[in-house]
Amino acid sequence: MKLISYQVNTQDGPKVRIGAVQGSNAIDLSAAYRLELLARGLNSNAAERLASALLPGDMVAFIENGEAGLDAAQVAISAAVKKGYETGPNNETIIFPLEDAKLLSPITRPPMLRDFMAFETHLKNIYPKLGKEIPPEWYEMPAYYKGNPSSLSTHGDEIPMPSYAQELDFEFELAIIIGRGGKNIPREDALSHVFGYTIYNDFSARKIQSKEIAIGLGPSKGKDFTNGHTLGPWIVTADEIPDIYNMAMKAKVNNEVWCDDNSGSIYWKFEDLVAHASMGEYLQVGEVLGTGTIGWGSGAEREKFLYPGDEVELEVEGIGILKNRIVAENS
Amino acid sequence: MKLISYQVNTQDGPKVRIGAVQGSNAIDLSAAYRLELLARGLNSNAAERLASALLPGDMVAFIENGEAGLDAAQVAISAAVKKGYETGPNNETIIFPLEDAKLLSPITRPPMLRDFMAFETHLKNIYPKLGKEIPPEWYEMPAYYKGNPSSLSTHGDEIPMPSYAQELDFEFELAIIIGRGGKNIPREDALSHVFGYTIYNDFSARKIQSKEIAIGLGPSKGKDFTNGHTLGPWIVTADEIPDIYNMAMKAKVNNEVWCDDNSGSIYWKFEDLVAHASMGEYLQVGEVLGTGTIGWGSGAEREKFLYPGDEVELEVEGIGILKNRIVAENS
Repeated sequence: MKLISYQVNTQDGPKVRIGAVQGSNAIDLSAAYRLELLARGLNSNAAERLASALLPGDMVAFIENGEAGLDAAQVAISAAVKKGYETGPNNETIIFPLEDAKLLSPITRPPMLRDFMAFETHLKNIYPKLGKEIPPEWYEMPAYYKGNPSSLSTHGDEIPMPSYAQELDFEFELAIIIGRGGKNIPREDALSHVFGYTIYNDFSARKIQSKEIAIGLGPSKGKDFTNGHTLGPWIVTADEIPDIYNMAMKAKVNNEVWCDDNSGSIYWKFEDLVAHASMGEYLQVGEVLGTGTIGWGSGAEREKFLYPGDEVELEVEGIGILKNRIVAENS
Repeated sequence: MKLISYQVNTQDGPKVRIGAVQGSNAIDLSAAYRLELLARGLNSNAAERLASALLPGDMVAFIENGEAGLDAAQVAISAAVKKGYETGPNNETIIFPLEDAKLLSPITRPPMLRDFMAFETHLKNIYPKLGKEIPPEWYEMPAYYKGNPSSLSTHGDEIPMPSYAQELDFEFELAIIIGRGGKNIPREDALSHVFGYTIYNDFSARKIQSKEIAIGLGPSKGKDFTNGHTLGPWIVTADEIPDIYNMAMKAKVNNEVWCDDNSGSIYWKFEDLVAHASMGEYLQVGEVLGTGTIGWGSGAEREKFLYPGDEVELEVEGIGILKNRIVAENS
């Protein structure tokens, strides 16, 4: 299943909904489900109540519903496709072109966003440029910083370059979304806690970030700015990815290929990241774990940076394309 | 006003409530307010509806209510004290000894927890022990890492030492709670965005933290473990602190004084922290900003650490006392 979060304008103001991607279309899961329940003879109160509970607008709540939510989503998709549902009980458009959707980050507000540094090639490309060697500690364990889970954006959003930045950089990453919580999760069980995968562009203001790293607390304003963390375009559930360690990953900046690599080059595996993050504390449903930048998946690796007007397109085989443009702040 | 969050057991399971501290007692704000509304002639549905909206159990929601919430809280406190209210409409105990309250972190789930490093003396004490000088970048701007806002504890809670730690350390800090959101907040307006102040103990696993800092992403598992961030015992609203830059701060470990200093020794002021955090992104209502460790406010500064059984007591003039004990994980 490929799941989007998108915004619709209602008489009660903007609302967030969850949709399923079918080719170049999206399906309004809640509307399709309600229509199907009505067709099965439920009254409208019951249809509304069950759809609200099983297919809520918030992706974290949907994931928390576990199999019950996924089963309802499957019922909605099958009904919409097989019965050709067009209009929901409240006049919602049930199947619509994806390009018409006002996409949001597929998970609009995860409880946490931890971002690791799992690809060795990225470090091998970066450290010599800084006149340094890769810290030996990096080989001992995966480490992460935490992003601002309220500053998420998605495919098509403009990324305002904050006024304190002289240029921006991108970071081409994969992200996993936790589907089942746990503490001290063993490495061998780790993948069973993953709900799905998405593409992650962790935009970065390098000059301030390098000062912050020198101070020792890791990146803060180097990463924390409006729309700075871009996820999307959708979440692909784990069952739809044949091999997470064999996905082609290609990044283009202004249509020029800057990165052409494969997820198999990861050094710290997803299993390591999940197990490590859950040590000594409860990893929550809906948490997002980023892998950190794949080799060549940033401008810093070729000493080239981004300025207002520049476009970054990240493509991952089996997931899709995440494309964004830098703009000036307050533009 | 001094505000606590506390847990009560109801027939519907445990619930969180907000209370006001009066000497050695606490007042159940919602129950006192409902009783007062009934006394004013409202029916029970209206009393319940208004109390739920104005004095919700979640501190972030209460702070979001702004003056409307504070006015309702004041009505509740005055009524409870002047009229001697004892029992609420649903048999709640309205005034009860603070020591009977099951305290929670005064803000149970802030949207973000940013922790700075604002005291120069702490760095002057630490860096020479590491054979290093204070990074010059530290004097250019305040920097922070982000804590896990789901791992909060409070006064009286036990702090489990995670299995990967050989010892723990404490960090004696002040924290501010944001009352009014904003982006690019000017330094001169910054304090008007502060709702209140509390004491913050940022427990730390130093060995893994030092490896994480070497990797460059700042502390992660060095700070991220169950109950690792301790806030409390309550939030003191900004109007009740006569001078935030003249509060005596004293830390005792197992009753031995390790720190005896004053908030006036801070280098990066609260105004700097608020202005900096809000650069290029929206600072949200309910966010917690920690100052980082005051000089001598950690064991690392005297090369002494904490083990299961050790007790840390942090006292700040005008706020109160935050006391916790280390225990073994799963003890």
